[in-house]
Amino acid sequence: MSTTTRAVLFDEAHPLRLSTGAELAPVEVAYETYGELDADRANAVVVCHALTGDAHAAGDGGWWSTLVGPGRPIDTDRYFVICANLLGGCSGTTGPSSTDLKTGAAYGLRFPLLHMRDLVAVHRALVAHLGIDRLHAAVGGSLGGMQVLQWALDHPGEIERAVLICASARLTAMNTGFTAAARAAIMRDPDFHDGDYAAHGTAPRTGLVVARMMAHLTYMSEEALRRKFDRERRVTDARMAFDDDFEVEHYLTHQGEVFPERFDALSYLYLTRVMDYFAPFEDPRLDLAAVDTAFQVLSFDTDWRFGTEHSQYLAAQLRAGGVAVDDEEIASPWGHDSFLLDVSEYHAAVARFLAAPAPASHVAGTPPSAD
Amino acid sequence: MSTTTRAVLFDEAHPLRLSTGAELAPVEVAYETYGELDADRANAVVVCHALTGDAHAAGDGGWWSTLVGPGRPIDTDRYFVICANLLGGCSGTTGPSSTDLKTGAAYGLRFPLLHMRDLVAVHRALVAHLGIDRLHAAVGGSLGGMQVLQWALDHPGEIERAVLICASARLTAMNTGFTAAARAAIMRDPDFHDGDYAAHGTAPRTGLVVARMMAHLTYMSEEALRRKFDRERRVTDARMAFDDDFEVEHYLTHQGEVFPERFDALSYLYLTRVMDYFAPFEDPRLDLAAVDTAFQVLSFDTDWRFGTEHSQYLAAQLRAGGVAVDDEEIASPWGHDSFLLDVSEYHAAVARFLAAPAPASHVAGTPPSAD
Repeated sequence: MSTTTRAVLFDEAHPLRLSTGAELAPVEVAYETYGELDADRANAVVVCHALTGDAHAAGDGGWWSTLVGPGRPIDTDRYFVICANLLGGCSGTTGPSSTDLKTGAAYGLRFPLLHMRDLVAVHRALVAHLGIDRLHAAVGGSLGGMQVLQWALDHPGEIERAVLICASARLTAMNTGFTAAARAAIMRDPDFHDGDYAAHGTAPRTGLVVARMMAHLTYMSEEALRRKFDRERRVTDARMAFDDDFEVEHYLTHQGEVFPERFDALSYLYLTRVMDYFAPFEDPRLDLAAVDTAFQVLSFDTDWRFGTEHSQYLAAQLRAGGVAVDDEEIASPWGHDSFLLDVSEYHAAVARFLAAPAPASHVAGTPPSAD
Repeated sequence: MSTTTRAVLFDEAHPLRLSTGAELAPVEVAYETYGELDADRANAVVVCHALTGDAHAAGDGGWWSTLVGPGRPIDTDRYFVICANLLGGCSGTTGPSSTDLKTGAAYGLRFPLLHMRDLVAVHRALVAHLGIDRLHAAVGGSLGGMQVLQWALDHPGEIERAVLICASARLTAMNTGFTAAARAAIMRDPDFHDGDYAAHGTAPRTGLVVARMMAHLTYMSEEALRRKFDRERRVTDARMAFDDDFEVEHYLTHQGEVFPERFDALSYLYLTRVMDYFAPFEDPRLDLAAVDTAFQVLSFDTDWRFGTEHSQYLAAQLRAGGVAVDDEEIASPWGHDSFLLDVSEYHAAVARFLAAPAPASHVAGTPPSAD
């Protein structure tokens, strides 16, 4: 069991230079580690969280305790596991609701816009800070998988194995439509105050509740909702009302209501925007020939947030550059949320990929650099 | 071309008795008609609108002008077409934002809760008011199709042919989840004032905008969004911002912004709730043996609001009672919205079904009353 550590990785003298050219300092990072680092520092695994996650991946209440822990697929008896809160987040790492030391107030919308590369830069700095040169693996689900992909594409030599679970390399118009509706709910909330809600002693709670109710539906499958709730009602008489009568309403309301207690509206805006703009295979600087990471790309058959077609596109782009990809669609009724759940075929696939000798990162006979 | 007519069909002396037992008066109905009623009054076709429709179905700006008009599948040179705004609506028919004559103020949430049967009762009264005993057909899309289904199930002898297009006889938990999120956006808007927004000289505009942005996504397909917008951006430089940059965002924002100009928040609540509770095949009073309507049930392959599985359930329930059903899944890339568009296979199917001699309403040899 780990407790969260905070480290200032960039300061005024050594600011974080963002992909837009802007500079940010200080940048503090909240992280946890599990297990022990080997003497040769070769057993480190970074796990990257999704949109609303945090550094507490494993142990009691850990968001990925199904996957990470002693004897789990990411076995902390074997690997030294690192999990950090994202840049732009709200659980200990610097983000738009952090205090801008220049003004003494929260950044708000004056916080610089972020690219996936900036999130990677902070995690790389943490790995260096921990004295690690090369990761046995980096593993991420959803936004976390997207971050791992950017890292592996940009920094050969640093990640031996990358596991991308229900990730995407190119959001669809439907995906961006849903994040746009969520952002509209937040930014049109009168308590948003152009992002300066902290100065007004308030927060766009209503907007966050509605955004979460809507987003939560995209994380579940029709089948999951049917199994959990179907058309079950809470009142058994014939009363019809606008308060929560169907169990699915009650559940969504609960998910919405608890969300503002643990997540910040500005982080929601910044991190969803990072995903909207993420399109690494359209980047002219991409050099797939240099990539030396072996990829496992997993998707779930009932996921309609980032379904198998997203993973197929991602895998096809890698393969077109000669990169070795082990991809698999896992059957699971639980939709996008499956990556957080104990789905045995999925867990077995991750355990197998992590434990196997490092596969060749390029398909034999087709190194793109030799073409 | 027709202009909207208003008729008071229920008054204090003869109130509308609702399925809950409550009484409502007066009830005014806004309707339009197109074409001429035959001397034998046998060519009337009622068309029923979806959640946010109105009485103006055909002609300039008519919401179903693709389907209804001279030479169109519902041919106004041949049929006398009637379209009325729904009870609970906000386009001329009495609804929750109408003035309660007892108080002189808008009903607000004091308006009685409605069942699909109540919507049918008002449309039946209109048909009687026009001196028509039996309809050549009743045709509806989405909520409109659900209304036609209730009418045909409850009132044998009144509808010769029923055309139900992308309708449902039982919303899923996913469907109700989306309407719950939309209602949350409206009811949590500080301008909602527990439904008494008119008395406060305001309206929950933000809630309606967000509800519409979200709902609009459920009316479109992934494929439709890809074809229309893909990842096209409005600004061509590398600027990243929270205002509408992707074309899909701009489109959704526009759809949201114009919605409060034409639709009322209370109507949105009442009519979505009618759909949530609609489950005619679970009604113990249902007597399929008495039904004498022939059904055409159409769905679209990319509709994920009320997809083909909804139509299949509906058709299966009718068939289990021996009722004749002509059902078809139409290929169309445009999702749920397809019912409003000029999809040739769909239009041809409707035209064929309406023009053919009335088919037997029960499958030969299997009248359920003889079982």
